[in-house]
Amino acid sequence: MRILLTGGAGFIGSHFCDRLIDEGHEVLVYDNLITGSRENIAHLSNHDSFTFIEHDVTEFIKVEGKLDAVLHFASPASPNPNSPYGYPQLPIQTLKVGAHGTHNTLGVARAHRARYLLTSTSEVYGDPLEHPQKEEYWGNVDPIGLRSVYDEAKRFAEAMTMAYHRTYGINTRIARIFNTYGPRMRLDDGRAVPNFLCQALTGQPVTIYGDGSQTRSFCYIDDMVEGLYRLLMADGDVHLPVNIGNPVEMSITELAEVIGRVTGRSIEMQYLADQRGPSDPQRRQPDISRAKAWLDWEPKVPLEAGLKPTVEDFKARL
Amino acid sequence: MRILLTGGAGFIGSHFCDRLIDEGHEVLVYDNLITGSRENIAHLSNHDSFTFIEHDVTEFIKVEGKLDAVLHFASPASPNPNSPYGYPQLPIQTLKVGAHGTHNTLGVARAHRARYLLTSTSEVYGDPLEHPQKEEYWGNVDPIGLRSVYDEAKRFAEAMTMAYHRTYGINTRIARIFNTYGPRMRLDDGRAVPNFLCQALTGQPVTIYGDGSQTRSFCYIDDMVEGLYRLLMADGDVHLPVNIGNPVEMSITELAEVIGRVTGRSIEMQYLADQRGPSDPQRRQPDISRAKAWLDWEPKVPLEAGLKPTVEDFKARL
Repeated sequence: MRILLTGGAGFIGSHFCDRLIDEGHEVLVYDNLITGSRENIAHLSNHDSFTFIEHDVTEFIKVEGKLDAVLHFASPASPNPNSPYGYPQLPIQTLKVGAHGTHNTLGVARAHRARYLLTSTSEVYGDPLEHPQKEEYWGNVDPIGLRSVYDEAKRFAEAMTMAYHRTYGINTRIARIFNTYGPRMRLDDGRAVPNFLCQALTGQPVTIYGDGSQTRSFCYIDDMVEGLYRLLMADGDVHLPVNIGNPVEMSITELAEVIGRVTGRSIEMQYLADQRGPSDPQRRQPDISRAKAWLDWEPKVPLEAGLKPTVEDFKARL
Repeated sequence: MRILLTGGAGFIGSHFCDRLIDEGHEVLVYDNLITGSRENIAHLSNHDSFTFIEHDVTEFIKVEGKLDAVLHFASPASPNPNSPYGYPQLPIQTLKVGAHGTHNTLGVARAHRARYLLTSTSEVYGDPLEHPQKEEYWGNVDPIGLRSVYDEAKRFAEAMTMAYHRTYGINTRIARIFNTYGPRMRLDDGRAVPNFLCQALTGQPVTIYGDGSQTRSFCYIDDMVEGLYRLLMADGDVHLPVNIGNPVEMSITELAEVIGRVTGRSIEMQYLADQRGPSDPQRRQPDISRAKAWLDWEPKVPLEAGLKPTVEDFKARL
């Protein structure tokens, strides 16, 4: 297949490129590099089946030749207001890549009669009042909060994707991606795994906001790529959203402890006043029944196994 | 003031034009007329202070000369899937005017350092689990349902408006408009008041979906215009959303009975199987404490008083 992938220089996008190239597809990446990085795709740059175009997909896109699939991965994704890559510092860009970027890429899919995959997010559930989250849950999102630039952009992107499916019969798929970690995450991404890894590996105390009891579920990148690839390739009617994530739930304090074991460092935990906003979720865990049923997919990589290559990658870059 | 108003040929927009002209402002209307109509503004067409431009505000807008305020009213607003003016038949246009239209008009406000008013909607509350709805309530909206093209577009529009306020310091205001009725509504708008009026005035049975116990709150257009005008002119910090609507709640069956009294026709009620979707709200009622406190505003016109001129207008057009 000939595939257009936006955000292909990002963390998940670049790993997905690797998989697509491995499977023998031709890949055309669009990325404006505001959160992605050239290093993530440097190893692909001389590959015959790989083309990189530095372009903001909120601007007009036109692709010559045939296209079989359009995958819209592009978006800032870290909620950390202190990271230069966090969406709170990129509010308009985040809103636009969700709205204008989704509209433009759906237009390309329509023009080429290509299948379309939107990577949405567990953030569409906001601070969920149901636990774990099934795809039928409508979510609990503050439309005007600081996180709304991401949450509402992705909810809008889902609404628009469904509208293109219903109106023009585009063969669309929507993945709701939960917390994912692995090599190539930005060191200063600002989310828990890269934060803790950098702190542990440089001998600093691990900073935990609040009491550390808030829980998360962490999916290793290889599992995520497998789930997304199966969703892209599925032949059935899979246009409704599918949660892709690891349902193993742990507290932020437990995560810090595991990171201590894997890095072999003694971890000093520093509990700071809770700076998370009122819409920062206390718990988030995917119900993956739909992914199991539709894609025969579930995560295989335990946290410690996934952290090992991640630690090696972080060590090499620190 | 010199004011840009999108959607000025629509029901609420055209009444707001009248008010702005009456108050001595200069008004520049952009409307693509997909749900608005030239008749609504025909009486203003020769007025020195009024300019109409047929233009889709999802496309680029540039205004020469100074602008003091930008008001983004444009959007399809009827949820009725059987009306040609309902957003279910205009899904992509509805999504785009909420996202691209809001972005474009915010850009104009930024360029002119003009104040900005977004007309949002009670639909951001979806099928509310809290009653009545305060502005702090985050809502209960299905991001992928048939109504999401409107609900998510307006939630996105609010998120983008807040982002422009926070990022660029634009002096923004957000009105969450509840059900409004009055002269100039499309006869085939598809919402309850115009539907019932047309049926009653043409001797047809009044069709009620479900058992008629679902409640709504109906605000007369003059009250709505007064609330919006006060919000536009308010000098304080009024950038958070403000509900504008009538808190008097009644069932759909009661509405039909009042319409019988006001039209002087004997009403035959026909109860049809509930064709409303699962996200059609069972109850919707504004808490207007914020509008009272910030704008010293509350509705003054009782339903029967507001229906009289509405009936006259409908009779003249039928």
